[in-house]
Amino acid sequence: MKLVSYLQDGHDHLGLLLNDYVYNLEAVHPELPNSMGMLLNYWEDSFPLLQDIEKSIEQGRVGKEKGQPLAQVQLLAPVPFPSSCRDGYAFRQHVEAARRNRNVPMIPEFDQYPIFYFTNHHSIQGPGKVRCMPDHFEKLDFELEVAIVICKGGRNIHAEEADSYIGGLMIMNDMSARRLQMEEMLLNLGPAKGKDFSTIIGPVLVTLDELAAFEVPAKEGHTGKNWNLPMKCFVNGVQVSDGNVNQMDWTFAEIIERCSYGVDLHAGDVIGSGTVGTGCFLELNGTGKLNNPDYKEQWLQAGDVVEMEVGALGRLTNTIVAEDTGWSILKRKK
Amino acid sequence: MKLVSYLQDGHDHLGLLLNDYVYNLEAVHPELPNSMGMLLNYWEDSFPLLQDIEKSIEQGRVGKEKGQPLAQVQLLAPVPFPSSCRDGYAFRQHVEAARRNRNVPMIPEFDQYPIFYFTNHHSIQGPGKVRCMPDHFEKLDFELEVAIVICKGGRNIHAEEADSYIGGLMIMNDMSARRLQMEEMLLNLGPAKGKDFSTIIGPVLVTLDELAAFEVPAKEGHTGKNWNLPMKCFVNGVQVSDGNVNQMDWTFAEIIERCSYGVDLHAGDVIGSGTVGTGCFLELNGTGKLNNPDYKEQWLQAGDVVEMEVGALGRLTNTIVAEDTGWSILKRKK
Repeated sequence: MKLVSYLQDGHDHLGLLLNDYVYNLEAVHPELPNSMGMLLNYWEDSFPLLQDIEKSIEQGRVGKEKGQPLAQVQLLAPVPFPSSCRDGYAFRQHVEAARRNRNVPMIPEFDQYPIFYFTNHHSIQGPGKVRCMPDHFEKLDFELEVAIVICKGGRNIHAEEADSYIGGLMIMNDMSARRLQMEEMLLNLGPAKGKDFSTIIGPVLVTLDELAAFEVPAKEGHTGKNWNLPMKCFVNGVQVSDGNVNQMDWTFAEIIERCSYGVDLHAGDVIGSGTVGTGCFLELNGTGKLNNPDYKEQWLQAGDVVEMEVGALGRLTNTIVAEDTGWSILKRKK
Repeated sequence: MKLVSYLQDGHDHLGLLLNDYVYNLEAVHPELPNSMGMLLNYWEDSFPLLQDIEKSIEQGRVGKEKGQPLAQVQLLAPVPFPSSCRDGYAFRQHVEAARRNRNVPMIPEFDQYPIFYFTNHHSIQGPGKVRCMPDHFEKLDFELEVAIVICKGGRNIHAEEADSYIGGLMIMNDMSARRLQMEEMLLNLGPAKGKDFSTIIGPVLVTLDELAAFEVPAKEGHTGKNWNLPMKCFVNGVQVSDGNVNQMDWTFAEIIERCSYGVDLHAGDVIGSGTVGTGCFLELNGTGKLNNPDYKEQWLQAGDVVEMEVGALGRLTNTIVAEDTGWSILKRKK
């Protein structure tokens, strides 16, 4: 099932996407949740109802008059108000390449535990404009990822049971301002200011039943579901990234296990996979320079169009826009 | 003014604390907000009303029958449901001591920008029991800090105006599981799992009007308010930490400026100061060993009582409790 959130009368509404039509679930059945937030809070009761509705639409028992053409709705992030946002570090290839580019060896701890960090859940957004300040344009980058949303609360969830806490998968673009990020990371508290201005998810949340045909085993020694879903990123129409969800070393189930150790997870918590190999300019520029001293590094500019395509999860399109102010905090340094 | 949140009928209620009595603001005046969340969302309208009510209580026009003795209420975190939680890195002395203990020189970037990171706002708690899992007891630590809560939304807030976004000050204890933290920090994404299980604030939120007598100028070259408020931590009755809010190098105003650059701040966002010098066992153990090779390092154990006292902000008391499970994720390493 493909679920979307869209703007209507100034509010976010939950929609079911089928054959390029968005069905307003509340209009189809008054007892269905009218927002993604409500659905996630009542997932176990509501999801079977949603599956019945989807069948009714497929069989023509719910007519197109209950829906609108996709092109006519304004999509928001499928989870427009996540209760939190964590980002993982699941793809070995990305970590290896980044370290090779810095001439440091692969770190053995990568294989020992699936780390994550917290990022700004208030800066989650969907398709459309990404507002950037002058300092963000100092080495502005995308990061090609996928993300899940938690669909029921839990604590101390073991990896073996963790897939049942996943509401679905989405594309994620973890926008990154590399100069801010590199400067703050010198102080060892990780990335925060470099990534707090925009994290993009969408355009749809695809539930796991719809992804059954793409399921593949986790990598050897790992636990949980994985999926064969090619991942691509295009900047101004030119493909720059090429990966696959099935390259995740740490599974979402294992990441959930670690996140929930001694901690309550909540319905609406979003967790990203971390960047896929080749999934950002930082990695591509490093590899480019390593292989060719004349390589010219590239970063995102105002007006650039970033399109991410992940098999079965759709295509996420954003345009980089300059926020109208000349203020820099980099230049306020003592 | 001293504001508290307390539990009544299964919900958090907003109370005004005066002379050891907690006044239920809704009972005093039906138009006043009944929770800290509501107050923060309507701060500019509600705060002047609250100041009038406080005067009425002081002048005996509101009787003690509208309140309860402090000892009879169950205090929660003053901001029981923060919309986010960031932690800063404002105290040079703590950073210098930690680096000296590791035999690395002071990092010049500390003085160039006031970094912060995001932590788990769902693990904010107040006075009382702190539940810890087996892995948390591997080098379990406190961190003595102060925190602010944002009382109105804003974006691109310059330091010169940022103090007006501060609702008040609270004591903060940023609980830390050092083994989890040290392991994850090897991968350069900062602390997350080591600090996601408990961040304690309280017992009261003290608004800035009540702190006017303690105001001191920011350090040279810095902008914004600072306060002369001694900071102490006692473990099982023995004082281990000794600092002062006035030792903050970066002010909260400057931290707000950085946090809000290109980012919306929301009423209810909590921001910690970072650890004061001498404000955690990690630093104290390092300094102890440096000065005396026979020094025996100390960490928190189940049953320990941690009390933090910050002048004018009260005393925050917590007891360490073992959560009833033998599960370890450290021991699940491949």
